[in-house]
Amino acid sequence: MIRFECDYLEGAHPLILQRLAETNMEQTPGYGTDIHSENARRLICAACKAPKAKVHLLVGGTQANAVVISSVLRPHQGVICADTGHINIHESGAIEAGGHKVLPIPSKDGKLHAAAVKVCCDNHYQDDSQEHMVQPAMVYISQPTENGTLYSKEELHQLAAICREYSLPLYLDGARLSYGLASPKNDLSLPEIAALCDIFYIGGTKTGALFGEAVVITNPALQKDFRYLIKQHGALLAKGRLLGIQFETLFTDDLYMRIARHAVDMALQIKTALTEKGIPLFYDSYTNQQFPILTRAQADTLAHDFAFSHWMHTADEKTVIRLCTSWATLPEHTAQLCNAIRSRL
Amino acid sequence: MIRFECDYLEGAHPLILQRLAETNMEQTPGYGTDIHSENARRLICAACKAPKAKVHLLVGGTQANAVVISSVLRPHQGVICADTGHINIHESGAIEAGGHKVLPIPSKDGKLHAAAVKVCCDNHYQDDSQEHMVQPAMVYISQPTENGTLYSKEELHQLAAICREYSLPLYLDGARLSYGLASPKNDLSLPEIAALCDIFYIGGTKTGALFGEAVVITNPALQKDFRYLIKQHGALLAKGRLLGIQFETLFTDDLYMRIARHAVDMALQIKTALTEKGIPLFYDSYTNQQFPILTRAQADTLAHDFAFSHWMHTADEKTVIRLCTSWATLPEHTAQLCNAIRSRL
Amino acid sequence: MIRFECDYLEGAHPLILQRLAETNMEQTPGYGTDIHSENARRLICAACKAPKAKVHLLVGGTQANAVVISSVLRPHQGVICADTGHINIHESGAIEAGGHKVLPIPSKDGKLHAAAVKVCCDNHYQDDSQEHMVQPAMVYISQPTENGTLYSKEELHQLAAICREYSLPLYLDGARLSYGLASPKNDLSLPEIAALCDIFYIGGTKTGALFGEAVVITNPALQKDFRYLIKQHGALLAKGRLLGIQFETLFTDDLYMRIARHAVDMALQIKTALTEKGIPLFYDSYTNQQFPILTRAQADTLAHDFAFSHWMHTADEKTVIRLCTSWATLPEHTAQLCNAIRSRL
Amino acid sequence: MIRFECDYLEGAHPLILQRLAETNMEQTPGYGTDIHSENARRLICAACKAPKAKVHLLVGGTQANAVVISSVLRPHQGVICADTGHINIHESGAIEAGGHKVLPIPSKDGKLHAAAVKVCCDNHYQDDSQEHMVQPAMVYISQPTENGTLYSKEELHQLAAICREYSLPLYLDGARLSYGLASPKNDLSLPEIAALCDIFYIGGTKTGALFGEAVVITNPALQKDFRYLIKQHGALLAKGRLLGIQFETLFTDDLYMRIARHAVDMALQIKTALTEKGIPLFYDSYTNQQFPILTRAQADTLAHDFAFSHWMHTADEKTVIRLCTSWATLPEHTAQLCNAIRSRL
Repeated sequence: MIRFECDYLEGAHPLILQRLAETNMEQTPGYGTDIHSENARRLICAACKAPKAKVHLLVGGTQANAVVISSVLRPHQGVICADTGHINIHESGAIEAGGHKVLPIPSKDGKLHAAAVKVCCDNHYQDDSQEHMVQPAMVYISQPTENGTLYSKEELHQLAAICREYSLPLYLDGARLSYGLASPKNDLSLPEIAALCDIFYIGGTKTGALFGEAVVITNPALQKDFRYLIKQHGALLAKGRLLGIQFETLFTDDLYMRIARHAVDMALQIKTALTEKGIPLFYDSYTNQQFPILTRAQADTLAHDFAFSHWMHTADEKTVIRLCTSWATLPEHTAQLCNAIRSRL
Repeated sequence: MIRFECDYLEGAHPLILQRLAETNMEQTPGYGTDIHSENARRLICAACKAPKAKVHLLVGGTQANAVVISSVLRPHQGVICADTGHINIHESGAIEAGGHKVLPIPSKDGKLHAAAVKVCCDNHYQDDSQEHMVQPAMVYISQPTENGTLYSKEELHQLAAICREYSLPLYLDGARLSYGLASPKNDLSLPEIAALCDIFYIGGTKTGALFGEAVVITNPALQKDFRYLIKQHGALLAKGRLLGIQFETLFTDDLYMRIARHAVDMALQIKTALTEKGIPLFYDSYTNQQFPILTRAQADTLAHDFAFSHWMHTADEKTVIRLCTSWATLPEHTAQLCNAIRSRL
Repeated sequence: MIRFECDYLEGAHPLILQRLAETNMEQTPGYGTDIHSENARRLICAACKAPKAKVHLLVGGTQANAVVISSVLRPHQGVICADTGHINIHESGAIEAGGHKVLPIPSKDGKLHAAAVKVCCDNHYQDDSQEHMVQPAMVYISQPTENGTLYSKEELHQLAAICREYSLPLYLDGARLSYGLASPKNDLSLPEIAALCDIFYIGGTKTGALFGEAVVITNPALQKDFRYLIKQHGALLAKGRLLGIQFETLFTDDLYMRIARHAVDMALQIKTALTEKGIPLFYDSYTNQQFPILTRAQADTLAHDFAFSHWMHTADEKTVIRLCTSWATLPEHTAQLCNAIRSRL
Repeated sequence: MIRFECDYLEGAHPLILQRLAETNMEQTPGYGTDIHSENARRLICAACKAPKAKVHLLVGGTQANAVVISSVLRPHQGVICADTGHINIHESGAIEAGGHKVLPIPSKDGKLHAAAVKVCCDNHYQDDSQEHMVQPAMVYISQPTENGTLYSKEELHQLAAICREYSLPLYLDGARLSYGLASPKNDLSLPEIAALCDIFYIGGTKTGALFGEAVVITNPALQKDFRYLIKQHGALLAKGRLLGIQFETLFTDDLYMRIARHAVDMALQIKTALTEKGIPLFYDSYTNQQFPILTRAQADTLAHDFAFSHWMHTADEKTVIRLCTSWATLPEHTAQLCNAIRSRL
C-alpha cells in the first residue's frame, strides 16, 4: 500500500532527527528560553523581514488557534471565518471553550472575501441592538485554505484593508503555509504576509517537523503577555528546545521551502495526470492537496494499491477523495499513482 | 403615538403590582426559599401535571438559557437549534461564554424539524474523526418560535422521539409560551409540553410580569444541583419572593392564560385586517406577533400614528415590520390600527 | 418573632412601590434606554460628581461582580481580594466560571491593605517564571466589608496609589455602600470614592429597592462595550425602566441616605446595648450589621423572640451571630431587642 | 558548570531517540490511532494491572491536568488540593480558565490529608447556603508532591476512603511518579495506585522522554468521550505515534523504573552528604529532588561550579535551593557535588 492520505504519516525529515540527536546531551533551560529557540525565533523574524515581530513556538495547530484567539478577543467578541474554516468545524469547539463565538460566513472555495467581511460588520454596527449580538472583532483565514485554494496578493490586500477599517486583527492559520508559498499560483511572499497580517502561524507539523507551529505576532498591540496565555493553555513545552531545534533546522539552508517545493511538485504531477484523464477536481488546488471526484468504481480501483482519505460524497453518488503529498513522498510512488490514474481509471 | 413594537412596553399587570404592594411588609427568607416561591412552584407543577418536576424562578430569558444549557452539557458538547434561534443570534454569545458551541440548522419558518436533527447526529456519529467536532448533545427550540410560528403536537412528538433516540435532552424556550398556548392553531397543552420536553421555561416577562421566567425540569437526571448553577450565573435573586409572588398571581384564577388570550385576540384582529387588505405576511403567525411586508410608503404612513419594530428588509426593497400585542393592548387602539390598515395602506 | 437576620427581608421602600405603580402604564423602550433609566444615571453621576462616568443598572451583586470582572481582565489575569471577599467565598465560583482566578490575601478584619497588594505584585513580577502564575491585574474590595468594617480615606488613598503604580483597576463592591456612607466612623464621600476607584457599584437591593445595583465606571478605558458584557451575562433587564425608576427614587430627596442613616442608627443602638452589657463583638462594626459573640445559652434566650443569622462558631464553643437593620426596622423592635439584651442576656 | 537545577535539562534517554529514528519512515495514521500508541496503552494497562483502564497519551502536565479536570467536573464544582499543588500555583490559571475554582487546603509538607478533605466537605454540606459556594467535587494530589514528599499506602487508602464517601473522584498528578515509585521510602505499587485512584497520570517528560504524560482512567464512569476533551484542549498530537513510541520504550525492559532508580540513587547520595555535613533540609525528601537550606555564603560557594534553582528565602535570611537529578545525571558529577558539599560548605 502506498499512502497519500495525509501529510503527517511519517516521523520527521531526517535532518531534524539528526539535529535532535546531535544536541541531545546539551543542557538547556526550559520553556523556550534556550539558545535554539532563541535562534529559531531570530531566523523566523529574518525570513519574515519583521525584526520587531514576536515569535512563539507551539506544539500544534488547534492549540495555536485557541491561544491566539483567546489572547486577542474580549469576552463579547467573536471571530469571523469562512464556514469551512478549521476553527469552525474541526477543533471540537476549542474556540467556544475559550468563550468566543465563531462567526462563519458561507464560502464556496474556502476563502473569505473582503466584501463579505464588510457586510458582516456593517450589519452588526447598523443594528440598533448590536449589543445583543456577538461583536465581530477578528478575522481568521487559512493559507492555503482547508480546500487547497490560495489567497492572491490582491485578495489579501483587500482583506487587510477591511480589517484595518473595522479594527479587526487579521489572523492567518498557516498549518500548510509552506505549500502555499511553494505553489506556482502563489504571488505572496512571507514578508508580505507578515506585513499584511497582525498575527499568523507558520506550520511545522505538516512540513517535516515532528510537531511545531511558529506563531508570529507582528502587531505590537497584540504581543503583551502572550507567554502567560501559552502556559495557561498547557502549551508551554517543558523542553522547549525541541521546538527551537526543529524550526532552526527548517529555517536553515532553505529546508522549509525545499520540503514544500518537492511536495507541491509531486502533487502537481498527480493533478496533471487527473486532468489529462478528464477526472474533475472538486477544488482547483495548486498546493500539496488534490481533490479528485471519482466514481465509486474508480475509487475502489485506486484503493487496491493506494491509501487516500475520503472527503465527501456528492449529490450524484460520486466521492471526493483527498490525495496529499509531503517531504516523504517518493517520486517513484508518485509515478506509480500517475500511471494508475492514466491506465486504470 | 400608539405603540405595538413589543410586548414589554409597560410595567406589569395591575394584579401583580397589587399583590406586591399587599405583601410588601411581609418578612421572608431570601433566595427563593419563601412561601410565595414555594406556592408558585406548586401551582406551576400542578398546571404542568408534573408533580415531580423541579421549578426554578429566574429573572430573564437569556439568563435562563445560559443557566440551563451550562447545567446540562459537558464541555465538548453543543446545542442544536434553528439558525433563527434566540441563543444563536440575540444573546451576545452567552452560550459560547459558557464554553459551548451553538450548532445552528438552517430553518425557513423558525422551526427545527426532527429529520434535520437526525441528519445532524448521524453525520456526527458516522464520522471517523467525530472527536474533532463538537458533539451534538442537546436540542433547543422556542415555542412559539422567534417568528411567531408554532410546533404542532405531531412535530413535537417527532422531535422528542429523535431526542430520546440520540440521548439529547430537549429544551423548550417558552419566552412567549402563553401566546402559543392561547393560539387558535395550537394543539399542545402545558402538560403535554411538560411530558415531551426534558426541561423548558414558562415566560413571565412578556406575559404581564415585571420580570420572571419559570424553568421547569421534568427529567430527574437534570435536576441535581441546579441552584448552584443559578447562583453561579448571578441569577439567584436576593428577594426571590418577588418572583414567587408574580408567578403565584399569574397562575391563580387563570390570569396567565387570560392575558395571553386577550393579546392573541388583538393580534388576530390585526392579522385579519392585513389579510383582507391583501398585505402579505412574512411568517404565518397565529400568536401575538404579526409580520406584515409593507412598501416603504405604507410603512411611512403607518409610522405617523403607530410605533412598530423593523424586522428586516426584503430583496425587493420592501420592509418587514413586527407588530406585537400584550395584556396592555387596548381594544380601541387595536381598532384604530385595523382602521388605518384598511383605510390608509 | 422580630427579625434581624438580614437587610432584605421585606419588599421595597414604600416610595419605590408607589413610583412603580404611578408609572406602570407608561410605555417605554426596553433594556435601559428609557427616560427613567436615563434620569437615574444622571442623578447618580451628579451624586458622584463624576459627569463623565458611565452608569449601568444591573439586577444583583454577584451579577455585577461577574460582569465587571470579566469585562476588565484578560484571560491570564486574576483579581486580588481579601480572603473574606464575597467573590472568593459566596458567589459559587462566578468569577472562575468567567475564567479568572481569585487571588485571596489573608485578612483579619475583612479589609485589604495596600502593603499586602504591593507584596503580592512584587512577588509576582520578581519571579523569573511569572508567566507560570496568574497575573494580579485588578483589586476588589468591599465597602463596608463583609464584616461591617470600613476603609478610611487614608486607607483607600493608599490602595488607589498602589493600584495606579501597578496598573491595577480598583473595583469597589458597594452592596451595602449606603451603610458605609451613613456610618459615624466614615470619612469618605461618594465623590471621593468615585475619584479613587476605577469602577464600583452602589447597592440598591439592601437599601430599600426590590433589587438593583448601579455600576459606575469612572475610568474611561474601562467603559467600552460594557453593554455587550451585560447582555452576555443575561443581565440586561428587558423592562430596564424598573431599575431606572428605583434608582431615580432612591437618588431623589436624599432617600438613599435617609434609609441608610435610619438603619445605622438602629444598629448602633443595638451595639450600645451589647457593649454596655459587656458582650464582646467579633468585628468592630459601625454599620448596619453587628456581630456579637454569645454563649449558647444567650443565643438560645435571644432566639425566643428574635430572628438573627448564625455567623460562625468560635474555638471556645461560643457562637457569633449577625444582627442586621434596614429601612424597615421599626424603632420599637429595636427597643425590644435592646431591652432583651440588657435584661435577659 | 554542572547542572542540577531541574530534571528536564537534556533531550531524551538515548533509547527513545534511537526508537524514534528506527521508526521514522513507518507510515501511521494520526492522532494516537497507530500501533505504537496502541502498544503503549497495552503496556501501561499491564504495568498498572488495570486491563479495563483507558489510557490517553498527552504532551504535557498542565495540559493533562486541564483536560482531566474539565472532563470530570460540572461548572459549579471545584477541585480540592494542597495549597502547594501545581494546579493552584504554577499553571497560570489553567483550571480557572476551564471555569473551575481550585479549593486549596493549607499544607506544610505538600500533602493533602484525608481529615482535611473531610472537614472541607462537611463544612460545605452542613452550610444552609451551600449553593452560594463552590461545591468540592474532586481531589487532586501529586505523588511525589511538589516538595518531594510521598504519600504512604496508609495515607492514600485514607484519602481514597474519604473520596468514595463523598463521591469525589481522586486524581493523582504523577509528573514525577517514577521517582516516587523508586524511592526507598515508598510502599505503594503502580497497581495499588491504579486501584485507589479514579484517574492519574504517569509522567514521561521528567523521566527521560522528550515529552509525554500518560493519563490512566480507571473509573469507567469517567472514561466517556475523553478524546473530545483532548482535542478541544489542543492536546491531540497529530503525529500521536511519537507519544506511543516513547511510552512503548519506557515501559519495555523496565526502562521507566531503571531511569528513576538511578536518579533517586544520585539524589540520596547528595542527601547523605548534606545530612552528614549538618545542613538542614527544608523538606524530608527521598525522591530525586532535595531542598537544602543554605546560608547565602554557602549558596554562593556552591554556585561557582554547580547550577541549581532557588526555591525560596527563609525568614532568617537563608535560602532554600532545589537540587534535581535525572536519567542524565552522571555519577562523577554527583560525586563532585558531594565532595563540594563536604569540603567547601
